[in-house]
Amino acid sequence: MEQKVNPYEVQGKIDYDKLVKDFGIKRLTKSDLDQIKEIAGELHPYLRREIFFANRDLKWCLDEYKKGNQFFLYTGCGPSGPLHLGHLTTWIFTKWLQDKFDVDLWFQFTDDEKFLFKNKSYEEIQEWTHENMLDVIALGFNPKKTHFLIDTKHAGIMYPEAIKVAKKITFSTIKSAFGFTDSNNIGSIFYTAMQTVPAFLPNVLRKEKRPCLIPLGADQDIHFRISRDVIEKLGHKKPAIIHTKFMPPITGIEGKMSSSSAGAAILTTDDAKTVKKKINKYAFSGGQPTVEEHRRLGGNPEIDISYQWLRYFESDDDKLKEIYDNYKSGKLLSGELKVIIIDKINNFLAEHQKKRKNAGKLISQYIYK
Amino acid sequence: MEQKVNPYEVQGKIDYDKLVKDFGIKRLTKSDLDQIKEIAGELHPYLRREIFFANRDLKWCLDEYKKGNQFFLYTGCGPSGPLHLGHLTTWIFTKWLQDKFDVDLWFQFTDDEKFLFKNKSYEEIQEWTHENMLDVIALGFNPKKTHFLIDTKHAGIMYPEAIKVAKKITFSTIKSAFGFTDSNNIGSIFYTAMQTVPAFLPNVLRKEKRPCLIPLGADQDIHFRISRDVIEKLGHKKPAIIHTKFMPPITGIEGKMSSSSAGAAILTTDDAKTVKKKINKYAFSGGQPTVEEHRRLGGNPEIDISYQWLRYFESDDDKLKEIYDNYKSGKLLSGELKVIIIDKINNFLAEHQKKRKNAGKLISQYIYK
Repeated sequence: MEQKVNPYEVQGKIDYDKLVKDFGIKRLTKSDLDQIKEIAGELHPYLRREIFFANRDLKWCLDEYKKGNQFFLYTGCGPSGPLHLGHLTTWIFTKWLQDKFDVDLWFQFTDDEKFLFKNKSYEEIQEWTHENMLDVIALGFNPKKTHFLIDTKHAGIMYPEAIKVAKKITFSTIKSAFGFTDSNNIGSIFYTAMQTVPAFLPNVLRKEKRPCLIPLGADQDIHFRISRDVIEKLGHKKPAIIHTKFMPPITGIEGKMSSSSAGAAILTTDDAKTVKKKINKYAFSGGQPTVEEHRRLGGNPEIDISYQWLRYFESDDDKLKEIYDNYKSGKLLSGELKVIIIDKINNFLAEHQKKRKNAGKLISQYIYK
Repeated sequence: MEQKVNPYEVQGKIDYDKLVKDFGIKRLTKSDLDQIKEIAGELHPYLRREIFFANRDLKWCLDEYKKGNQFFLYTGCGPSGPLHLGHLTTWIFTKWLQDKFDVDLWFQFTDDEKFLFKNKSYEEIQEWTHENMLDVIALGFNPKKTHFLIDTKHAGIMYPEAIKVAKKITFSTIKSAFGFTDSNNIGSIFYTAMQTVPAFLPNVLRKEKRPCLIPLGADQDIHFRISRDVIEKLGHKKPAIIHTKFMPPITGIEGKMSSSSAGAAILTTDDAKTVKKKINKYAFSGGQPTVEEHRRLGGNPEIDISYQWLRYFESDDDKLKEIYDNYKSGKLLSGELKVIIIDKINNFLAEHQKKRKNAGKLISQYIYK
C-alpha cells in the first residue's frame, strides 16, 4: 500500500524518513532533546524512544521560553466516537509538557469537523464531544491552565478569526493539500481555517505575543503546513510543532489505530476482560509459529504489536530493553509478552477509568469562558 | 451586455421576464396583491408599480398568516461602504411589511461576506457595519420587533447552524451557482451557509415554527435557490421570498445602483447640494437634445432616470401619472423633471439624516441578545 498521511487518511507502513522529507519538517536532534532536558530536567520516554520524532521551529520556541516568553500549548481532539489508546498517548505527552514547562494548554474539540466529515448527526457528535472531554480531563491536565475550545460553542470568538485565515486560502490549495474534490461539502472546505485559529487565538484574547507549540499526530501537520504562512501574514508568529508517530493498530504496524475498525483499537472504556480478549485475539505477533521455533529463532519485536505498545506504556528503559532482548532471543514467548502488555494497559486503564468517572463534574472548570 | 444577475455581479439591461424564467420564480399576480391588500388594508406603491414583482411561496406564507401563524421577516445588508438609495428602498418596503403585518424582522449584517469578498480590512468592514446600522435604524423599524444579527458578532449562534447547512452543499453547486473557481477563498465558498441561517434561526432560538418571508433584491435569490431545499431537509419550512427589481443607477437603466462607481449613486449621507449636483450632472435623461425638439417630440420616461427614481419617491399615483404624461408630451422639460426628483430626494434625505444622527444611541436596542 502506498503511504498516505493526511488528517482524513493514514495508510501503508509509514516511512518516517520519507514523511519528514515530504512534509518539510525536521527530525528532533540531540541538541533539541538536550534543550528540552535542560528545562524539563528529564526526557519523556516518548522523546527518548523517538515516538515524538520531528518538529517545526521547536528551537525557536524553547529559546523564547528561556528568554522568559513562555509558549502556550495547543492540541486537540476530533470527537466522533470512543477514544482509544492512540489518542491518549499524544495527550499524555502534552500533559508532561504542561507540567514540566508549567504552561497554558488550549485544547480544541473539533466537533464541527467531525460533523462535517462523518456521516453522523449533530447530536451524536455533541454526545461524543462530552464523552471525549471526560477522557481528556481524566489525564489530569492542570484545570487552572487548561482551556477547552469547542468549535461550535466557541464559534463566537473563533469564527471572526477563522474568516481572516480563510480569506488567505484558496480552494486550489485545499484541494491539492487534502485531496478534496468539487464534491466536498463547503463546510469541510472551510474547516481548516477553524483548526488554525487556536494557534493564535490565545494571543488575541489575552493581548499577548507568546509562541504556540502544537504537539500533534503527524497526520495533522498539513493543516499547519498550509496555515503557518497565513498566521504570519495576520501578524502572529508561526506556531512551533512537535510531531508524534502513529501508535500502530492492534492488527499490525501499518497505518494508525482507529476506533472505526472493529477490534483494531483498545478503547479508553474497555474493561480488563475486553482488553485481554482483544490483545490475545488480535494483537499481531512477531513470534514464531511454534514454541520450539520461537526458542530457537526468537521473536521480532519490530513488528510485534505487544512490544510496540510497551514502548508507550513501560516507562522504564531498562525493563523495556530486557523485554526486547528476551523476546528477540526467544527466551520470552509471545503469550508471555502479551501478559505483560495486557497487565500494563489494564493498570493504566483502571486508573484512567477511575478518574474518568469523576471527570463529569469538572468539565465546566475546563471550558474556556 | 449579457444579462448577469447574481450577488456578486449585476450587469446589462435586466429582462425581468427572462430572470423570472431563469430563476424559476413567479410574478406577483393580482390574487397575490389582493391577498396582501386584504391584510394590509392597502398596497405599497412598490407593489402597485411592480417594483416588487416576483415571489416564491408568498401565497403559502400569507395563508399561514391568516390562520394565525405569523411569519417573520428576514432581510439584510452587506456592509462594505456607504449606503445609497437603492439599498434603502428594499428596506423601506420591509418596514412597510413590518408595520402592516406587525411582525418580527431579523436583519442580518453580512460583515463576514464583505470581508471575504472585498479587498478591505476587517476593521474597515466593522466601521461600515456600524455606519450602515445607523441607516437601517433611521428607517424607523420597530425596535421591539427588530433584531440585528451581525455575522461575526453572532457567530456563536449562527455557525453551529451554518455547518448543518454547509454539510448539504457541495462546492460543485456553489461553483455553478455563483460562478466561483478554485481560486476563490475558502471563506467565500462557505459563506452562503451563513446567509441561509437567519431563514430558520429565529425558529431554533424561539422553538417556534413560523414561516419566514424574505424581501430581497433579485440578485440575492440564488443563495436561497440553493438553500431552500437544504433548509427543508433540516426540518424547517422553505422560506418565502418577495423579489424587488434593481433601482437603476444614475447613469442609465442598465445594471444596478452601486456605491463603488463614482457619482453613480446618491448616498444616504449626501447633502442637498451634492444630490443636486449629482443629478444635474449625471442623471441620464430621456429628454431631447434641445428644448424645441423636446416640446415637439416629448421625453422618454422609460429611460429617464429622474422619472424612474420618482417611481420610488413619489407615492401619489396621480401625481406620478401627471408627470409621466407631461414629460412624454414634452410639456415637462428634463431640467424641470430633475428639479422635482432633487426636491423629493432631498426632502427624504433631510428627514433620514435627522433620524440617522440620533440612531447611534439606539443600536444596542436593535442588536439581538
